[in-house]
Amino acid sequence: MMSTEETESIVQDAIVWANQHGLVVALKDKAFVNPECATVHVPLAALPVAFPEERFLQAKAVMPLFNRVIDRVAADEAYLERTLAAAAKFDDFTRRLLQLLVATRSARQALAGGEIALGINRSDYMLDEPSGGFLQVELNTIASSFGCLSSLMTHLHTYLSSRVPYLDASRLPLNTAIDGIPAAIAAAAKAHGVAGGVVVMIVQPGERNAYDQQWIQLQLWERHGLRTYRRTLGDIATKHSQLGHDGQLQVEGQPVSVIYFRAGYTPDDYPSESEWRGREIIECSNAAKCPTVAYQLAGAKKVQQDLARTGVVEQFTESADEARQLRSFFAGLWGLDDVTEPSTADAVGEALRNPDRFVLKPQREGGGNNLYGADLVSRLSQPEGLSAFILMQKIRPPAQSSVLVRNGQWAISDTLSEVGIYGTFLKKGKEVLLNEEVGHLVRTKRTDSNEGGVAAGFAVLDSPYLV
Amino acid sequence: MMSTEETESIVQDAIVWANQHGLVVALKDKAFVNPECATVHVPLAALPVAFPEERFLQAKAVMPLFNRVIDRVAADEAYLERTLAAAAKFDDFTRRLLQLLVATRSARQALAGGEIALGINRSDYMLDEPSGGFLQVELNTIASSFGCLSSLMTHLHTYLSSRVPYLDASRLPLNTAIDGIPAAIAAAAKAHGVAGGVVVMIVQPGERNAYDQQWIQLQLWERHGLRTYRRTLGDIATKHSQLGHDGQLQVEGQPVSVIYFRAGYTPDDYPSESEWRGREIIECSNAAKCPTVAYQLAGAKKVQQDLARTGVVEQFTESADEARQLRSFFAGLWGLDDVTEPSTADAVGEALRNPDRFVLKPQREGGGNNLYGADLVSRLSQPEGLSAFILMQKIRPPAQSSVLVRNGQWAISDTLSEVGIYGTFLKKGKEVLLNEEVGHLVRTKRTDSNEGGVAAGFAVLDSPYLV
Repeated sequence: MMSTEETESIVQDAIVWANQHGLVVALKDKAFVNPECATVHVPLAALPVAFPEERFLQAKAVMPLFNRVIDRVAADEAYLERTLAAAAKFDDFTRRLLQLLVATRSARQALAGGEIALGINRSDYMLDEPSGGFLQVELNTIASSFGCLSSLMTHLHTYLSSRVPYLDASRLPLNTAIDGIPAAIAAAAKAHGVAGGVVVMIVQPGERNAYDQQWIQLQLWERHGLRTYRRTLGDIATKHSQLGHDGQLQVEGQPVSVIYFRAGYTPDDYPSESEWRGREIIECSNAAKCPTVAYQLAGAKKVQQDLARTGVVEQFTESADEARQLRSFFAGLWGLDDVTEPSTADAVGEALRNPDRFVLKPQREGGGNNLYGADLVSRLSQPEGLSAFILMQKIRPPAQSSVLVRNGQWAISDTLSEVGIYGTFLKKGKEVLLNEEVGHLVRTKRTDSNEGGVAAGFAVLDSPYLV
Repeated sequence: MMSTEETESIVQDAIVWANQHGLVVALKDKAFVNPECATVHVPLAALPVAFPEERFLQAKAVMPLFNRVIDRVAADEAYLERTLAAAAKFDDFTRRLLQLLVATRSARQALAGGEIALGINRSDYMLDEPSGGFLQVELNTIASSFGCLSSLMTHLHTYLSSRVPYLDASRLPLNTAIDGIPAAIAAAAKAHGVAGGVVVMIVQPGERNAYDQQWIQLQLWERHGLRTYRRTLGDIATKHSQLGHDGQLQVEGQPVSVIYFRAGYTPDDYPSESEWRGREIIECSNAAKCPTVAYQLAGAKKVQQDLARTGVVEQFTESADEARQLRSFFAGLWGLDDVTEPSTADAVGEALRNPDRFVLKPQREGGGNNLYGADLVSRLSQPEGLSAFILMQKIRPPAQSSVLVRNGQWAISDTLSEVGIYGTFLKKGKEVLLNEEVGHLVRTKRTDSNEGGVAAGFAVLDSPYLV
């Protein structure tokens, strides 16, 4: 539709705008001692991607329901223990989290006023072209990222729309994640209620996506008067942190109102027992936890698969209609606890014959861990430890042509897009204080890449152009 | 006043805020093909510098007067030729500009509706501690830079003030340069009056301070609906540019309403005759020129010195009071056309005895060209070609302690500060359409550095804390 010169001009405007407005990632150039001092625009799509309005609105509408299911699953700790038991046998990380859930139970139950749980969730979906469906890829309950940068992407595409005659900016939906996510953290601080309480953001040392996080910190300060301390899990165990008998956590003498995890979702974030001790201190504290260990476990792939089994999600919803709504987003999901069970054996047989229609997912967050094709066949052929995986229908979204921009250079590629919807949920004791849908994320990747992580370098940020 | 930890925390907040809000310069990392795709925060002072409110307000108030003097000096082309004749003998660049002034005169005078001249000037000052005065360093009439980044510095210091209990954000004066400079360009486009006319920004190839310029481009588009083309002087002579018989310049088929120079102030910007041809094409066109050759020459050091001579600035003002106001900012300035002339000989003798009280300035813009100390003595001792220089009193501002931040690292230093005031002026034929003061700039440098360029690496951006 555009000439090379026009595309070149739009791309350059996009790069400059991104760098002017903090739509950036840290450069991590070794020339600089300070890792956040130099930046580069995020990988981005120069123009928004066409997306069916009806599907987009459905995903937004259902988000509070997913928030509530996560909360109810997390509240049913016996269910979590039962459902994750087989996976925990072969997956150390799941086992450690389950152990923490049990070990901290009495401390959590003893908290005056009840435990405060904050969910900042993101449910990810793709269109499935063969079936005409719109299916959930996964539901993230810890460290759901890119909310702020995604809001900025909407602004970028709105700006670029003014340059492209055939684009109508009113087709770019508002994206309030940059407001809604900090607002939820502020609500949690208010629920905690201690004057002068601070937010502690648990981060990975040397985080490259620090700017997405820094936008939250800036909003917390400017709009809500809340200071944020960036600390690693190890810092909590070792650096001037103190847990009072009343469960009040102090970090460097400041009372902590909210602990917001942007790390802790992968075993790599627990290189020693010190990090596990840090996690335990947090879990026992009366600070609002985003998320609690239970919320984190409720987001496990194994739970996602189990909820899809006949009659299971129904245990966590209020009506058959709610369950039907949720189920309309469920892809084909199979547990591998017992591969001799007939329906599982059928699915495994089908996957071995047609591996390209399936994906094998371990109990892991973050891009790059799923198995496809020959790797899937090879792993699926060894029964030992398969219960740590789930087998999932591979969703096949329609391909669209897109201008992908990375490190200042662009290329036109055939691409697939994934839509994420952010939801915030806050509960103190048994009282639900917040349950909202707060924004969206679109990530676009080349059709020849199986993985979809932006930070991992597989995908770019995008936004939906509703059609 | 602050602990190392507090300073560290403020500095990190400053760096992150700068990168979030486009207070950046291009990184020019060789790892990237696209020179604007990666950025680093501007060199900056973590906290604003104390500055006397009365002096600051005086400098703002006098700016329209300086704007008008520049315009009147530029209009008196015989004065320019006469005053710059001796300098031109030894300075090729001044000679070429004077030749252009003469060569384009008939074409300029033939323009229907009159020539459109746009001044975006910046008058720079320093406090002089020994005399208690507040003295003009120089008056820039071409490529006055840092207006937009300086407005952002005001925002940064306002933000940081919320973090530092002893700072009162109301003492940071509003800085509207980021609005006023684009508004002046838009007014010039309106005065030109051709529908669909574009702005051409004349840039240096590989400009590192591109983001200061890009903020102007963004404002021109978002607030005034004006497209900007970035072109080098060589492009104008060689790349799809056309000058019509009516003086209408076209660049790639688009009518040009305004030519805004962010290059062309140094001989380095004219590596071949092609660039001089580009400058001549522009000068003959009916586009608003920011600046005209005459405005550029009116900003010469030699003119600054000549205006200070008894009775000279009085020729370009409307009253004795106006001249008195302007003269209150004049430092000691001496021409070197005839070093045998008694008062000149006195000054030269004084400078040779006390070189640290003087600076020897060539007819050059941009940091790094002035001569100090032993270099001054050495040059001043050779009479040949001295008319291309002026001798100036060295202004001695009070030292203040400051936290300077560069490439993510900070140091506390004794520093000096220079205040710049931006003024915009627009004239079509004989009609003055705009004459305003639009904002300010503070640059702070270590006391052990003679030069003050931010882009050249000698100084940092700062802002005034009025006391």
